[in-house]
Amino acid sequence: MQTERFVDIIHKKREGGELSDDEIKGMITDYVSGNIPDYQMSAMLMAIFFQGMSDREMTTLTLVMRDSGECVDLSVIDGVKVDKHSTGGVGDKTTLIVGPIVAACGIPVAKMSGRGLGFTGGTYDKLESIPGYRVELTDEEFFAAVKECGISLVGQSGEMAPADKLIYALRDVTATVESIPLIASSIMSKKLAAGADKIVLDVTVGNGAFMKDIETATELAKRMVAIGNGAGRETVAMITDMNEPLGYAIGNNIEVIEAVDVLKGRGPEDLKEVCFALAGMMISLGSGEGSSSEELKNKLSYDEGVALAKEKISSGEAYEKFLQLVKNQGGDTTYIEDTDKFEKAKHSLELKAESAGYLSFIDTEGFGMGAGMLGAGRAKKEDSIDYSAGMIMRKKIGDKVEVGDVIATMYAADESKLALAKEFLSDKYRITTEKPEKIKLIYDVIRQS
Amino acid sequence: MQTERFVDIIHKKREGGELSDDEIKGMITDYVSGNIPDYQMSAMLMAIFFQGMSDREMTTLTLVMRDSGECVDLSVIDGVKVDKHSTGGVGDKTTLIVGPIVAACGIPVAKMSGRGLGFTGGTYDKLESIPGYRVELTDEEFFAAVKECGISLVGQSGEMAPADKLIYALRDVTATVESIPLIASSIMSKKLAAGADKIVLDVTVGNGAFMKDIETATELAKRMVAIGNGAGRETVAMITDMNEPLGYAIGNNIEVIEAVDVLKGRGPEDLKEVCFALAGMMISLGSGEGSSSEELKNKLSYDEGVALAKEKISSGEAYEKFLQLVKNQGGDTTYIEDTDKFEKAKHSLELKAESAGYLSFIDTEGFGMGAGMLGAGRAKKEDSIDYSAGMIMRKKIGDKVEVGDVIATMYAADESKLALAKEFLSDKYRITTEKPEKIKLIYDVIRQS
Repeated sequence: MQTERFVDIIHKKREGGELSDDEIKGMITDYVSGNIPDYQMSAMLMAIFFQGMSDREMTTLTLVMRDSGECVDLSVIDGVKVDKHSTGGVGDKTTLIVGPIVAACGIPVAKMSGRGLGFTGGTYDKLESIPGYRVELTDEEFFAAVKECGISLVGQSGEMAPADKLIYALRDVTATVESIPLIASSIMSKKLAAGADKIVLDVTVGNGAFMKDIETATELAKRMVAIGNGAGRETVAMITDMNEPLGYAIGNNIEVIEAVDVLKGRGPEDLKEVCFALAGMMISLGSGEGSSSEELKNKLSYDEGVALAKEKISSGEAYEKFLQLVKNQGGDTTYIEDTDKFEKAKHSLELKAESAGYLSFIDTEGFGMGAGMLGAGRAKKEDSIDYSAGMIMRKKIGDKVEVGDVIATMYAADESKLALAKEFLSDKYRITTEKPEKIKLIYDVIRQS
Repeated sequence: MQTERFVDIIHKKREGGELSDDEIKGMITDYVSGNIPDYQMSAMLMAIFFQGMSDREMTTLTLVMRDSGECVDLSVIDGVKVDKHSTGGVGDKTTLIVGPIVAACGIPVAKMSGRGLGFTGGTYDKLESIPGYRVELTDEEFFAAVKECGISLVGQSGEMAPADKLIYALRDVTATVESIPLIASSIMSKKLAAGADKIVLDVTVGNGAFMKDIETATELAKRMVAIGNGAGRETVAMITDMNEPLGYAIGNNIEVIEAVDVLKGRGPEDLKEVCFALAGMMISLGSGEGSSSEELKNKLSYDEGVALAKEKISSGEAYEKFLQLVKNQGGDTTYIEDTDKFEKAKHSLELKAESAGYLSFIDTEGFGMGAGMLGAGRAKKEDSIDYSAGMIMRKKIGDKVEVGDVIATMYAADESKLALAKEFLSDKYRITTEKPEKIKLIYDVIRQS
């Protein structure tokens, strides 16, 4: 910023110009240090909203934000480390299933997850609902756990990409959140800081996802894949559906129970299909040269990866791996062996159909909010979560429904929450006489173009 | 702002929505009071840059900014008060000529001008270069002067449109200056605060103007005319050329001398033509119903106005009116009667042609900056101005030029400034063998559509 005034750089972007690497570095460094004031940064963010960013600009922005904080060095762990990241959804417990499957193949899984802010808890909170499970490990314990057990799922240590955190807070109050290049670099800065060699992105799309239509989701997926590969980490994105909750459970310990069901070879079909797809892709990326697993010395295709993922479930190896993981992190495995042991909500209430026909529409975001109202989520970082609160869907889109059929069972610690959520959810689904089209689960796979 | 969060209003504008009057009022009020922070306002300004504003939005914004400060009440003065405003140019001394012409027709001229910030001084500074002339009058003195003399040209009293000042300062550092609706409402908020019944806008266009091309100038003119008429003040805009300095003189007292020349029936043709056009339009607007002048009881057309303006020059009445004005405000009229009395710069230097042909291009902004370097302008509000500094052009575009012909004579208090300006100006004009096309002076007249 010595030779150029920042206002000239805003002007350049406003006119559609491409910022140089030095300009982007200077912008972030000076913003974090307070030399660029918020009012200039917000004008720049709005200019970026309208003018976009090239892949090079976006990649540079991502790397500069990544390097603003702690980066995990996974090189102490042998083999090709493959990470997975979802852009978020309702009922998304895939990490709990995909992690053990992949680890059962001999691919080291060293995954950090944040606490959830929103409708339901994050993977962090779900894990914490298992009695005894230590989510917070030191870096040394974390690495040792991966080496010993092949998998460790923990909370985020240190502060990753603090520059992104600052910029996100500004975007949130200046109507500049919905910019694809800004979303892509925000996500990827944290993902790259997490240290994996290869990344599978689960880009959700639909009324329960941040991206509402396939076009925008595809655009976001392409941009993130470009950043990942531009940063030297092979990255593949899968575009998956979020027009209804994934599986049946929305909450914390009830989602763990559902995940264990899948690991035991049961569980909802949609959840299984998405998990096999994500795990299959991770296995494919983690196979071949550099793999630390004997089983994966030869490169596997995606289809071969999916087949192997299914095998790891049917053989019980994935379930065994999950038990090892829980035990290794201090969790009480008897809860996994008998999920009936999990704490249950004091009260429940059923949401019943008032007309007959087919369940043809679910306002997925609405149901997520409903679970939050029941106590499954937190609005502020400091809020506590009720691990047993939430709901279990009893119908999927396309299911035939009679009057009085249960659509969902809601669980909460007190009855007033149930009544409130019932009222709130009453107009969040539709039953029609015509049978709706089947929802596709995997729309597309985006690789480097 | 009670029911809506400002971030939602930014979002609305970002998506191309039209803000309601209440939203605009709330935005300005809350920004001025500090309840909306700079970083939200700058994001909004950038969103406006990209999405524009409707005439209604712009007019509301203008009126809210006008009402944020002092408004002059000219109703104590009889007749139709007509004001004139130029968007700025190099060598623009039209107010000193047009004011006396219009006042000589019996139209009251009550005009406030700001100090100049930029290449040369404003009308304020030019008037102050007349020994004894009191630019600062109290409101009472100002009104009395107009009643007594029919004209008063003074500095701005009080603070007009402070909201605009605040917002302009933010635009200046966030690359949001070049937005037509924001420029239009900024100018018109101050113009409407000045209290005239009718307004003639001189929208300059060319390499010495803020608007570089006819399209943008026309757009700005249309938007300002819409605001003026929307606010109930008849407004007409004239689009005039600024591809070379207006007249020959660029400075302060040398511009007064040139203005006096025109008032005496001499002076440069281009300056006269623009002055007759502006005065003619002001006379036409000020004539007819409500006029306090016997001569103007019948409505005059623009052409009739121009003819009357010329008459007021040839009859000497405009010159007499200027003398009255100077005397009435305490100025020494002997300087006007004998302009040789004006203080002269200690040093001068000629800028000479190094090739023969026709003067075909002048970087007008560059020549304005050159005058500023010589001491004719101020960079900061606190800087003092050298009234005798500046330059007199000796050639106009299209003039035949021989090697060694003087292009301009530069004046300054010390020789180092002259050398610096000469070096700076050496590449700011072009001589070609082909004769350039004649520059048009008045491109268009914009009335309410």
